[in-house]
Amino acid sequence: MTEVIHPLDALFKPQSIAFIGATMREGSLGRTLIKNLMKFEYTGKLFPVNPNKDAIHSIKCYSTILDIPDPVDLGIIFVPREQALTAAEQCGKKGVKGLLVLTAGFREVGGEGIEAEKKLVEITRQYGMRLIGPNCMGIVNTDPSVQMNATISTVSPKPGNVAFLTQSGGLGIMIFSQTHRYNVGLSMFASIGNKADVLDNDMIEYWGNDERTDVILLYMEGVDNPRQFAQAVRRVSKKKPILAVKAGRTTVGARAASSHTGAMAEEDSIINGLFEQCGIIRVDSIEELFELAVSFSRKRFPKSKKVAVISNGGGPAVMAVDACIGLGLDISPFSETTRKKIADSLFDISATVNPVDMSGMAGTAEFEKVLQCAIEDSEIGSALVILVKSPVLIDPMDVLNNIENASQTTDKPILTMVIGQDVMHRNNEFDSIPDIPVYECIESAVWTLFNMIRYKEWLEKQDGHIKTYDVDKNSVNALLAPESNKSQHYLEPGHVFEILSAYRFPVIPSFDAGTLHQAITIAEQIGYPIVLKGIAKGLIHKSDIGGVALDLRTREEVIKAFAEIKERVNAVNQDSFEGVIVQKMITSGREVILGMTAIEHLGPVLMFGLGGIFVEAIRDVCFRPAPITDVEADEIIRSIKGYPILKGIRGEKGVDIECIKECLLRLSQLVCDFDCIQSIDINPFKVGESARTSFVVDARIMVGKK
Amino acid sequence: MTEVIHPLDALFKPQSIAFIGATMREGSLGRTLIKNLMKFEYTGKLFPVNPNKDAIHSIKCYSTILDIPDPVDLGIIFVPREQALTAAEQCGKKGVKGLLVLTAGFREVGGEGIEAEKKLVEITRQYGMRLIGPNCMGIVNTDPSVQMNATISTVSPKPGNVAFLTQSGGLGIMIFSQTHRYNVGLSMFASIGNKADVLDNDMIEYWGNDERTDVILLYMEGVDNPRQFAQAVRRVSKKKPILAVKAGRTTVGARAASSHTGAMAEEDSIINGLFEQCGIIRVDSIEELFELAVSFSRKRFPKSKKVAVISNGGGPAVMAVDACIGLGLDISPFSETTRKKIADSLFDISATVNPVDMSGMAGTAEFEKVLQCAIEDSEIGSALVILVKSPVLIDPMDVLNNIENASQTTDKPILTMVIGQDVMHRNNEFDSIPDIPVYECIESAVWTLFNMIRYKEWLEKQDGHIKTYDVDKNSVNALLAPESNKSQHYLEPGHVFEILSAYRFPVIPSFDAGTLHQAITIAEQIGYPIVLKGIAKGLIHKSDIGGVALDLRTREEVIKAFAEIKERVNAVNQDSFEGVIVQKMITSGREVILGMTAIEHLGPVLMFGLGGIFVEAIRDVCFRPAPITDVEADEIIRSIKGYPILKGIRGEKGVDIECIKECLLRLSQLVCDFDCIQSIDINPFKVGESARTSFVVDARIMVGKK
Repeated sequence: MTEVIHPLDALFKPQSIAFIGATMREGSLGRTLIKNLMKFEYTGKLFPVNPNKDAIHSIKCYSTILDIPDPVDLGIIFVPREQALTAAEQCGKKGVKGLLVLTAGFREVGGEGIEAEKKLVEITRQYGMRLIGPNCMGIVNTDPSVQMNATISTVSPKPGNVAFLTQSGGLGIMIFSQTHRYNVGLSMFASIGNKADVLDNDMIEYWGNDERTDVILLYMEGVDNPRQFAQAVRRVSKKKPILAVKAGRTTVGARAASSHTGAMAEEDSIINGLFEQCGIIRVDSIEELFELAVSFSRKRFPKSKKVAVISNGGGPAVMAVDACIGLGLDISPFSETTRKKIADSLFDISATVNPVDMSGMAGTAEFEKVLQCAIEDSEIGSALVILVKSPVLIDPMDVLNNIENASQTTDKPILTMVIGQDVMHRNNEFDSIPDIPVYECIESAVWTLFNMIRYKEWLEKQDGHIKTYDVDKNSVNALLAPESNKSQHYLEPGHVFEILSAYRFPVIPSFDAGTLHQAITIAEQIGYPIVLKGIAKGLIHKSDIGGVALDLRTREEVIKAFAEIKERVNAVNQDSFEGVIVQKMITSGREVILGMTAIEHLGPVLMFGLGGIFVEAIRDVCFRPAPITDVEADEIIRSIKGYPILKGIRGEKGVDIECIKECLLRLSQLVCDFDCIQSIDINPFKVGESARTSFVVDARIMVGKK
Repeated sequence: MTEVIHPLDALFKPQSIAFIGATMREGSLGRTLIKNLMKFEYTGKLFPVNPNKDAIHSIKCYSTILDIPDPVDLGIIFVPREQALTAAEQCGKKGVKGLLVLTAGFREVGGEGIEAEKKLVEITRQYGMRLIGPNCMGIVNTDPSVQMNATISTVSPKPGNVAFLTQSGGLGIMIFSQTHRYNVGLSMFASIGNKADVLDNDMIEYWGNDERTDVILLYMEGVDNPRQFAQAVRRVSKKKPILAVKAGRTTVGARAASSHTGAMAEEDSIINGLFEQCGIIRVDSIEELFELAVSFSRKRFPKSKKVAVISNGGGPAVMAVDACIGLGLDISPFSETTRKKIADSLFDISATVNPVDMSGMAGTAEFEKVLQCAIEDSEIGSALVILVKSPVLIDPMDVLNNIENASQTTDKPILTMVIGQDVMHRNNEFDSIPDIPVYECIESAVWTLFNMIRYKEWLEKQDGHIKTYDVDKNSVNALLAPESNKSQHYLEPGHVFEILSAYRFPVIPSFDAGTLHQAITIAEQIGYPIVLKGIAKGLIHKSDIGGVALDLRTREEVIKAFAEIKERVNAVNQDSFEGVIVQKMITSGREVILGMTAIEHLGPVLMFGLGGIFVEAIRDVCFRPAPITDVEADEIIRSIKGYPILKGIRGEKGVDIECIKECLLRLSQLVCDFDCIQSIDINPFKVGESARTSFVVDARIMVGKK
C-alpha cells in the first residue's frame, strides 16, 4: 500500500474503511456498496458499522465507528441525513481523515438541507478531514494495491489509465458501462455530488500527480470557483489531457442543472473562453469523452496535420477524406517515393495518391505493406486505416494484429476503423484486444484525430507574457476612487476618455463645444469631415436618439446637424442639451469592439469582436478571462470568423492587428488594476492600416457595486 | 408472386433468375452470391450458368442461358468483362428483361472500359432490358413473396420497411450490419455501381410506389442528372422521407470520389440547395442515416416542437435539454394541470416542470405514469424518455414494454434512451424488441427528433408558385441573340443595365458622361451626392483598379475624382478611358447580392447573400436551382445568417424584404428564359425601406458558350 501523504489519499488509498450504514437488506443501495467493495477485492480492512447487526457479509459489524479497535482512514456514511451528522462527528473523534458521504437531502433540497450541509462542513474542518459529497454515488481506485469500488453502481468499471470526475451521480453507471463498450479503463473515479468540500480543482490537481492517470475526463454542470479551477487545469493540462462535458449549455439546460445540483448558470461562451484559456478540450456528450479517450489514453499525438487514409473500400475512403478536410486536416498526396512504394504493393485498380483505396481485393498483407509505407513517409503525422468487412476472406482480427505490429515500429498514432463487424464486442469476450485505437464510425475517428492535433498544439503553445505597460494608474485611481463605492452606474463620457487616455489607448481627440460658433471654429481647426455628438446629463445611448451626426463636410452641414441634435436631445429631456463633442470623422479602417464584463466568482472577462451591427446579428465575438497574455491576445483576434476582413481580403489592405492586440492587453491591464470596473464597451474602435490611423471613437464604462 | 408490371420488377421481383458465372469455388465471390440466394430462400427458380459444371449447389447447371428451357426474368452476370458482353447479348436473345452486372472493369477504369460500358448499354437498349451496374455488389428484395438476396455480402440484411440505395458497393456489408445494430430492416437494397442504365431517380420513383417501403436512404457520391433526380425526389419526398449521405463534400473528397466512380464534383453548397429544394434530409454518415431511420420508419412525426423530457437521472436530463435547445426545440414548462398530475405520481425530490427528473428512485410505475401525463398534454408534440440504469432494481425491459403500451395510446413519437445497458443487443438475441425507437445516445435521439420536425415542416410546406412577371422579353432576346453563339464573355455595362431594366429590376438611373463638363452637368441635375464609375473597353472589375469614386458631394470633389479615374484607367490600358457613368449615391439601405451561375447538367443556380466584403469573409450565401417559387424565395432570404440585419435589429428599421423577393423571382424568370446566360452578379443591390429606395447599383452578366 502506498504511504499516505496527500490528504486525498485518505479517500482514495485508505488502508482501512468504516462503512457507516452497512446493510445486506435485499434491494438496498447499502448492500450494493458493500458487495462492490468485496467483489472488487478491496485490499485493505473493511469495518461495517450498524448498531443492529453482529455481522454483515460475514464480517464482524460494530455499533459505532468508535468501537472499532483499529485505526480507520476512510469513513463512508450512508445513513439518513439526521444520523449522518452524528456519524461524521464520530468519524472525526475516531481520527478518520477521509469522509465519503452518499446520503442525499442536503444543499440540493434547500432549506434545512443547506443548514445540515453547513454543519457537515464545519465538522469536517474541525477534525481536519476531507469530504467528498454529500449526495454522490461514490469513488473508485482501480490501483492493484487498493482495488476500491466504493460506489452504488451495479456495473463495475474496467481498470485503466483514465480518471473520471462527475458532478452527476446519475451518470455513474453509464460511465462504467462505457469503459467496457469503448475498452477504455479507469484509474480513479469520483462522483463529487454537492461539492461541499472537495472540488473539481482538488481532484484535477490530485490526478495531475497520479502516475496511473494519463487522461482526465470531466462531466461538469457548474464551475463554482472558476479562478482556482482554471489555475489547477492550466498546471495539469500541460502534463495530461483534460477533456470535459460542461452541461447546462443552454439557458433551459442551465435551469435544469441548477435545479438539481444548485450549480450556477454562466454564459456558455464565457465557459468556452475559460476552457480555451486553460487547455480543456470541450465536448458535448459522455460518448464523445470516451471516443477521444480511446486514442488519448495511448499517449501518442500527431506531429503534423497530414493524415494517410488507407481503406479497402472507396465509399468509406471518400467519407473519411470529407471528414478530415471538413476539420482542417491535410490529405495532400504522398511524396512520389511513397506513392511508388505503395503502388508496388497493390493491384492495378487501386488508387494510391492519398487516400489509398486498395479495393475490396486487399488482404492482410496489403494492409500491412501500405500502412508501413505510409508511416515511413516523414510528412505523415498519423494514419487512418479503414477496414471494411469485405467479401474476400479476410479476418479483421488478423489485420488488427498486423496493424498493432506496425504500430510498434512508430510513435505516430494509427487509428483504425472496422466497418461491418463488431470486433470490439467479440474481443471483449476473448480478452485479446489488439492494443490500438479501434473505432466503429469513421467520423468519430477523424474527429478524435482533429482533437489530438488540437491538444498537440496546446502542448506546444508558448506561454506568452502578461505585459505591463507604462500607464498613468494614479490619475485613474484618483478618478475612480470616489465612484467605486456608489452603486453601479455609467461614468460620464469625459471621464471615460480620460481613463482610456491614461492607459494610452489611441483615443480620438474630442473637443467640447457649448455653442454652434465654438463647434464651427473647432471643425475648421481640425478639418472636415467631422462628427458631432450631443452632450447632456445622463445621455449614454446617444445614437439611439439621433444625437450623433457623422461625416459632416461643410459649415452648412454643421449648422444643420447642430440644430437637429439640440432639438432631439431636448425632446428626450427638456433643456438638457449642454453642447456637442466635435471629433474628426474617421472614414477608413474597420470597426471592432473591445469589451469587458465582470462576472461573479470569475472576475473580469474580456470580449472582442467585429463591430457594427454585424456583431449583433451574427454574434461573432470571443471571450477570455483577464488577465490575458500576448499569445492569447493574438489567439482572440484570430478566432473570430471575421478575421479575414481584418487581415485584408480581395486585394484590400488589412488593418493594424498589432494595434488591436496592444489595446486588448492594455484593456486587460486596466480591468485587472481596478476591480470596481463592472463593464467597459469600446465601440467602435476604428482600426486603420497603422496605429497612427486607429482610434477609439466611442466608449462606455460602468463602475460601482453590483 | 406479384405480377410483373414495372420494368424494374424484372430486377427486383423476378420469377426466375439465371446466374451467369455461378461457381462453388472456395473463397470466390460467385460462391457467396449463390449461397446468399439459397440462404435467403429465394422463392423463384434459380438457374446457374457455367459451361464447365453439371450442377452447382445441387442445382442443374447450364452451359449458356440459351440452354435454359424455362423463361428467365433476371440475368445476373458475374464473369470477366470480355465474356460479360456476350452473356448480355445472350440474355437479350433469351428474352430476359432485367440485367444485374456485378463485373468490374468498365467506365471506372477508363479507356477500353468506357467502350465496353457503352457497348453493354447498347445491348441493353437493343433488347429492351433494364440494367443495374456494372461494377456493383448486388440487389436485395426482402418481400416474403420474393426473398432475393442477390449480393456478394457475407452479412444478410434484416427485413423491414426501409429501402437503401448505395453508389459504393464497398459500403454494402457495412449497411447490412447496421440493419441489425440499429434494428432497422430493409425492404429493398440496390448497389447501383456505375449507373450505366438504372439511375438514382429510377430507384427513387420505383420505391416511391412500393408499398413495403416507408423510408428511402441514399448514399450518393455524385448526382449525374440533377434535374431528373430533383423531380423524382420532389414527387416521392411528400409521400415518404428520403434521407441521404452525399459524400465527396470537400474538394479532396470529391477528387477521391471521382477517381473511384467517375462522379462529378459539384459545389457542395449547391447540393445543399438542391436537396433543400426537393425535400431530402442530408446527413453526414451511414450511422446517422440509420439513427434517423430508427424513428422515421415508425411513421409518426411530432405535431409541435414542444418536447417532454422524462428521466430518472439529473445529468442525462440536463444533457437532453441542452441538445434540444441547441437545435431549436421547445422545452418550456408543462401546463400547470399536467405539472400537478406529474407531481402527484412522484417523490418530493423530483423536478416536475420539464424536464422531469424523477430521481434514481423511480421505478417502472413512475415512468409509465409520468409519460402518460406528458403525452396527454395537448401542447406536447413528442417525448424523450431517458432510462439510466439505476441502482434501484428496475428492469429496463419492463420499462420499455410499458412505454410501448403507452405508445399505443397516442400517435405522438416517443423516443427512448437506455443508458448504461446494451438493451438492443440483448433483445436481438431473444427477438423480443419492443416496437419503439430505442437510442443509446441522448444527442442522437434529440437530433432525430429535430429532423422529424424538419420533415413534418416539409410535408406541410406550401407548394408555392413560380411567378411569371410581365417583362420585355423580346428586347432582351434581340440583345442576346448576337452574343449567345460567341464564346463565354461579359456583356458591356450598358447592355447589362438594359437587360435588367427590361425585366423591371429597380436599376439605378445611370448617365454616360464623356467629358468632365458633362459629368458635372449631370451631377447637378440629379443632385449630390453622386458616384462616378470609369468606362473603358473591357473594364469589368472597375473598383479593383480604383475606377470608382463614391459619395461625391461637391463640384470640386467631382473634378478631382474624374481626373483620378481617368489617370487610373489609362494607367491600366493606355488611352482606353472613354468617360464615366454618373449615378446618384445611395447612402441608405443594406447591400445584398443576387447572383446566378449555370452549372453543367443542373442548369441555372440562383445565389443570394449579404453584400459587401462580408460575403467574401463569411460566405453567408444560399444557393437554389432555378426556377424557384415564391415560397422558396422567402426561404432563401430567411436562410442566411444575416437575415436579422435585413429584418432590422436594435431598433433600426428593416429593409423591404418583399422587394428582394420579387427581384429573386424576376432573376429566376430571366435566367430560365435565356439559357445562353452563364452567370449574373447583381452586386451590390442596395435595398432600402421600400421598393422606391431600393436600387441595383452594379451588375455583371456573362453569356455565350462554355
